[in-house]
Amino acid sequence: MKIIVQKFGGTSVANAAKIRRAAKRVIDTVKKGYGVVVVASARGKQTDELIADALELDPNPPKREMDQLLSTGEQQSVSLFAMALHAMGYDAISFTGGQIRMITDGVFTKARIKSIDAERIHRQLDLGRIVIVAGFQGIDEEENITTLGRGGSDTTAVALAAAMGANECEIYTDVDGIYTTDPRIFPDAVKMSQISYEEMLEMASLGAGVMHIRAVGFGMRYNVKIHVRNSGNENEGTLITAEDSKMEGVVVSGATVQKDMAKISLIGVDNVPGNAAKIFAHLSKAKVVVNDIIQTEISDEKANLSFMIGTSDLQTAKEAVDQIKDEVNCQQVFIRDDIAEVSVVGVGMRTHYGVAEKMFGALAEARVNIDSITTSEIRISVAVDEDEAEKALKAVCVAFELDKQAEARTKY
Amino acid sequence: MKIIVQKFGGTSVANAAKIRRAAKRVIDTVKKGYGVVVVASARGKQTDELIADALELDPNPPKREMDQLLSTGEQQSVSLFAMALHAMGYDAISFTGGQIRMITDGVFTKARIKSIDAERIHRQLDLGRIVIVAGFQGIDEEENITTLGRGGSDTTAVALAAAMGANECEIYTDVDGIYTTDPRIFPDAVKMSQISYEEMLEMASLGAGVMHIRAVGFGMRYNVKIHVRNSGNENEGTLITAEDSKMEGVVVSGATVQKDMAKISLIGVDNVPGNAAKIFAHLSKAKVVVNDIIQTEISDEKANLSFMIGTSDLQTAKEAVDQIKDEVNCQQVFIRDDIAEVSVVGVGMRTHYGVAEKMFGALAEARVNIDSITTSEIRISVAVDEDEAEKALKAVCVAFELDKQAEARTKY
Repeated sequence: MKIIVQKFGGTSVANAAKIRRAAKRVIDTVKKGYGVVVVASARGKQTDELIADALELDPNPPKREMDQLLSTGEQQSVSLFAMALHAMGYDAISFTGGQIRMITDGVFTKARIKSIDAERIHRQLDLGRIVIVAGFQGIDEEENITTLGRGGSDTTAVALAAAMGANECEIYTDVDGIYTTDPRIFPDAVKMSQISYEEMLEMASLGAGVMHIRAVGFGMRYNVKIHVRNSGNENEGTLITAEDSKMEGVVVSGATVQKDMAKISLIGVDNVPGNAAKIFAHLSKAKVVVNDIIQTEISDEKANLSFMIGTSDLQTAKEAVDQIKDEVNCQQVFIRDDIAEVSVVGVGMRTHYGVAEKMFGALAEARVNIDSITTSEIRISVAVDEDEAEKALKAVCVAFELDKQAEARTKY
Repeated sequence: MKIIVQKFGGTSVANAAKIRRAAKRVIDTVKKGYGVVVVASARGKQTDELIADALELDPNPPKREMDQLLSTGEQQSVSLFAMALHAMGYDAISFTGGQIRMITDGVFTKARIKSIDAERIHRQLDLGRIVIVAGFQGIDEEENITTLGRGGSDTTAVALAAAMGANECEIYTDVDGIYTTDPRIFPDAVKMSQISYEEMLEMASLGAGVMHIRAVGFGMRYNVKIHVRNSGNENEGTLITAEDSKMEGVVVSGATVQKDMAKISLIGVDNVPGNAAKIFAHLSKAKVVVNDIIQTEISDEKANLSFMIGTSDLQTAKEAVDQIKDEVNCQQVFIRDDIAEVSVVGVGMRTHYGVAEKMFGALAEARVNIDSITTSEIRISVAVDEDEAEKALKAVCVAFELDKQAEARTKY
């Protein structure tokens, strides 16, 4: 049996009318001969309401109890979804994460999936049933309920698709797919028809919403074809797939901007092996998420070391750096808290030259000053003044023709 | 460790303030040196809201999915309850029915408990934790979530108390305990300090709310001391316990009235073995709950057979009787749908004479006509016109001095 996993987010199941609309889409897919496994999130704002209920009782609730509480949102959605299908004449059965043995580690509020009992779902599909699985949740080895953290339902869907050998994993959302950049900043952005896992990983880690990075990572690891679509229309969305030769012709697939960034620079750190490791181990222990790191020697004995963080982590990072700075003989600490990072992403960069040049040229023409530059194999990022971030993004989008479909762009 | 099970109903956990109040009571009990297992119901009107959500999608929802849906209400309560205790500085852990292996049969919406993993709870109590268990729910052998039906949380509490060898099972509610009769009809009714399981079973099956009959049955079977108390004050409530010699001195413990009753009489049924069984098997298949049955021979060949039912079952019962009446050669069917049943209950009846006489005398004096009479070892019930039901109850209450505490009543 050909199998499709269809994931509906909270806005797509927010009320009875929307659940019915989603159910109709499932039935359409069943009529095409597919076995359908639905993954549903909690209805609308329900998770937020439950969090508010919890905080009213306990400003610092135990994480195990939060997971026990929040997982009820998805459980309600899936049973209601099954009822909607039943009322339309289709046999459906809902499962919690625990019921399909979605076994995770025991890290409450951000657990990682270890295994899934795909057999139980296969048996139900073989009986002609539509299977509805609660997203976002699992159980640990001791049957405690765990949740997968932000974007958890996407991860559930992709992991299920992998475990079941599904032909495709459709992620329904309230936009038409993945855009070349944020249309709120660059209104001419266009929807991509296809993007590689690696590009999507870069885009997601650079703050492009829609798909969560862990779900994309799962998709890449198990080669699950992910189709991001709009639950409100029939449009084709964006396919996230393995890289193919066609993609290489496209130099830059998308561009992103991350605001609210800060940069911490440690000036004149002793240039001896292990000092960088010492600093970042210390930051990691303080649970600071560090983005790009830049290290440059300034003499035989001394180096400068900079890294980017979200401004929400700034205070914690400052304290962590203060604790460690003497140990590495840091002469001075510079902090900038008004930084944004503009990035371009594209697998074509591997085989094309001149991308950096073109990007810096566009920024120069727009009179945007570049604070620092970092690159990966398929990404170039520049740190700029936060005030100039939108101007910078627009200049980059125009330079790389991100207002045109990939096929229509100037070939190199 | 001495263990107490404390059950809080939906009104006792309806909002944050009430959860906190319940949590304080739990802490008071912990301070007295008890290991406390809390059983909580769904918050306030939540179950009703979830039922409305379900019916909006499916007028006839599959029972398995209803249980999957409704069980979330209790799951939310228990995690929130654990958070409240945590915020007050106490270590608490919540469990769903599934997590403590509350195994039931697979009869969705009215499952029966088969076994409980008391060990998991004992281990947590031994760690110094307060354990909060979701009432009303279990799982079947295939891990489907089941619910126990009306009064299910009481049943969970008493079953847990039995499984854990608890010293007492406290049922917190919004009244002070069990009253001699319904105070809305007989305002002078008094709270009983103690009642036997058997009396409580009779009272509960005669519609006296507060405790559900299955929970009382569990208590009797496993000899669990049940204490029905008001969550809003510190008053002693009513103890439901095994019968003791003291109780025998009390002839009538309580009185009840059941309105909305109907009586169906099958006149001139063939008086041969197996006919009654045939009729009641047929009614049972139609899911009609039959109360008192009266059979009287009217000749060697013929008998009359009457039974009482709730008026909500009347239509179904009529149809069932119509289907079977020719098979038993019934000559005529009489139906009265304006009946009420007034009953007195008391273990003392076993050893005292004259109770029926006194009851009929009181009714005669009040000029209430008696339609029919049924009795058990510890109960006398009379069917009367529904219009006269309240007058009848009052007359009986006065006759048996149910406005006085048991010790203060006239001794026989």
